[in-house]
Amino acid sequence: MSVESHMKHNKNPTNQWLSMNQTGQAALHSLALAQSKNSDLKAFTCLASTQEVIEKSKLAESLPLQGLPVGIKDIIDTADFPTEYGSVIHAGFRPKSDAAIVSLLKRAGAVIIGKTVSTEFAFLEPAATLNPHRQLVGYTPGGSSAGSAAAVAAGILPFAVGTQTGGSVIRPASYCGVVGFKPSFGVLPMPGIHIFSWSLDTLGFFTPDVAMMQHCLSALHSHFATQTRAPSVLKLGMLRQYPWDEPQAEATLTVDQFGTDAQAAGHQCVDVRLPGSATVAYQAHGIVQDYEVAQAMAWVFDHHADKLSPLLRNHLTAAQTVTYDQYLLAQRQIQEARVDVAKIFDRADLIVLPSAPGAPPLNNSTGSSSFNRLWTALGYPCVSLPHWVNTSEGLRVPIGIQLVGRPGSDNELLKKALELESIG
Amino acid sequence: MSVESHMKHNKNPTNQWLSMNQTGQAALHSLALAQSKNSDLKAFTCLASTQEVIEKSKLAESLPLQGLPVGIKDIIDTADFPTEYGSVIHAGFRPKSDAAIVSLLKRAGAVIIGKTVSTEFAFLEPAATLNPHRQLVGYTPGGSSAGSAAAVAAGILPFAVGTQTGGSVIRPASYCGVVGFKPSFGVLPMPGIHIFSWSLDTLGFFTPDVAMMQHCLSALHSHFATQTRAPSVLKLGMLRQYPWDEPQAEATLTVDQFGTDAQAAGHQCVDVRLPGSATVAYQAHGIVQDYEVAQAMAWVFDHHADKLSPLLRNHLTAAQTVTYDQYLLAQRQIQEARVDVAKIFDRADLIVLPSAPGAPPLNNSTGSSSFNRLWTALGYPCVSLPHWVNTSEGLRVPIGIQLVGRPGSDNELLKKALELESIG
Repeated sequence: MSVESHMKHNKNPTNQWLSMNQTGQAALHSLALAQSKNSDLKAFTCLASTQEVIEKSKLAESLPLQGLPVGIKDIIDTADFPTEYGSVIHAGFRPKSDAAIVSLLKRAGAVIIGKTVSTEFAFLEPAATLNPHRQLVGYTPGGSSAGSAAAVAAGILPFAVGTQTGGSVIRPASYCGVVGFKPSFGVLPMPGIHIFSWSLDTLGFFTPDVAMMQHCLSALHSHFATQTRAPSVLKLGMLRQYPWDEPQAEATLTVDQFGTDAQAAGHQCVDVRLPGSATVAYQAHGIVQDYEVAQAMAWVFDHHADKLSPLLRNHLTAAQTVTYDQYLLAQRQIQEARVDVAKIFDRADLIVLPSAPGAPPLNNSTGSSSFNRLWTALGYPCVSLPHWVNTSEGLRVPIGIQLVGRPGSDNELLKKALELESIG
Repeated sequence: MSVESHMKHNKNPTNQWLSMNQTGQAALHSLALAQSKNSDLKAFTCLASTQEVIEKSKLAESLPLQGLPVGIKDIIDTADFPTEYGSVIHAGFRPKSDAAIVSLLKRAGAVIIGKTVSTEFAFLEPAATLNPHRQLVGYTPGGSSAGSAAAVAAGILPFAVGTQTGGSVIRPASYCGVVGFKPSFGVLPMPGIHIFSWSLDTLGFFTPDVAMMQHCLSALHSHFATQTRAPSVLKLGMLRQYPWDEPQAEATLTVDQFGTDAQAAGHQCVDVRLPGSATVAYQAHGIVQDYEVAQAMAWVFDHHADKLSPLLRNHLTAAQTVTYDQYLLAQRQIQEARVDVAKIFDRADLIVLPSAPGAPPLNNSTGSSSFNRLWTALGYPCVSLPHWVNTSEGLRVPIGIQLVGRPGSDNELLKKALELESIG
């Protein structure tokens, strides 16, 4: 196996997209790519018309994002497009109003190219979307934000919106070889998004690189600076023991190589460990999710259980057995870990671990969110940086390096990610 | 002025409703009352048909609530009724699915009689609903859950659903002379409810007495016991100094009398004070609410600002100036107060204060939520017990006694409320 940085193989995608955008061509270019590639890739549930994109790009000319094309995960309400939540139960459903994030994107001047495929209600049943890398046909793009990750990885979009309840942003970012960002709780607004677990559901974004992530966030949100790099030497907290699955060899190798390269670039690596409360909080994630989804999806379950996948139907049935006392305890455990795990940041500027257990598995699953659930439950911000590795079978596969920051330090984490993106 | 307990003037409403319900007559009785009284009272935006109520009552016969009639605040989605969020913007809007709480109510065997009037998007613009007490025509029923409180007070419903972001359950309960209950965060599910502020919005219920509140909650939720009384002597934490409005004379008198009567009944009163962090958290409530509503209502503001009341439109305009840093600080301040204020419960079993600054004001406002906002922000459970006082002008007016419990101790608080309801 040998490890290579993603960045060696790509020109500067942010510069390419932004220069195209300045001449008003990015959205139409994106739409044309989507139109030609989607019958194979299956990343979009529906697309805007050429006329719509032309009109909306014109209106957005003077706005911060100047008509930059964006894709919206199909569990997010849009008044201009059907919103089907990845389920036949909602086939053709057209919400009356836009989700808050959609309104904010439009205000900032983004132009929606289409809705991107979500797994069924953002759960685990694989969707039709392909992994866009030629050598990975037959392997999963990850889930649940499959279409958003795949569309960015395929070069169709510079920017796509997803959500994460377990690992639904960071995992597909890892499997598709793009940058994923899941912010702290409260950074991005959730109204108008189909709820799976209201304590865990978090919006996130996909971009080809960190500069584009900063560009989009700074246009949307006063907290973020555009294309700013952490100036100082960074102390990387290398996390190598996990209270969940063991990583596969290629993930361990990628993280080790990343640490070595970071040191060669002048940064420091320290070993960090999770406290026992993190193990408890990791288990508590499932309790909270199950208790909440049993209520959040009560209408679907009571009226349309026959139209759910067996996987989701059985999960919802089992989820109803979680008691309120178990839920309260789980919430307390997560709250305790939230304070406890943050002490790691007294010793390190950020935590480094794989974004997923390994390379994308075959597409009869969406892979495992085990490396993501703790950070979702704690509400810490996470970035996945794309790396690539050649396996012993000669397959070239993407592996994300997951950077985890102190809660609320989202802008700082992205600055550090910009610095760390260039190493290796 | 003289103070009298509400309970002296009413027979046992729970027994009356439940015996009617056992013979399958409660829902039809409720519907008939609603049909005859609503043209004056304006508590409902729409009503079920007689046929629907008959059919649904039959289906509910073997379920815990056995067809008990309920009203649902009109910011809560219902697939069987229009849901207009109190705004012309959504006139006739019919959601595709039920809110989670509606599904849970149906599972428990409640029969929806109609949707109850909310103020416009649950904000402060007065709705058309009257205060149902004859001597209070021209005075507000409170808001935003105006219709739910008024329908229970008028004897139309034994049970109605509301929501509280500032004081929208406890205040109308006080002004209408009924029991109101706002639980701890996380007790009742919020999916499918129009969001004003996702960190603050909380479901709550109205009933004529505490026994009915326990009956309904125990049918809905494993945490609650039915018709159970706190067995021991209670230590009441009397809160007489407030970091907000001064209460009016009739509110102070009512609380003082309540304390005296509680002591006569064998309970103890201790004076408690709010720490400085509570003053900070009270201010922070507004920051959090404004930051969130500016995003939650972005679609409405961008597309229909001209159809909003000037009160709400101006509020949304001003709310957009709150920064993310102010919001983060406010959230931290509330979190600190959440821990700090709970220390009061080391000295007292519950906190006692007025539910509102005084009697209902004239109906060109919905009154003030000043006595409620802190507890909403902290997520502590609150009960309002109805009391009545004769003012010096000879008007007989309702004043709620607000009981506040330790977060998560909702069932215990209701047991204490059942005990304290009978005193005076």
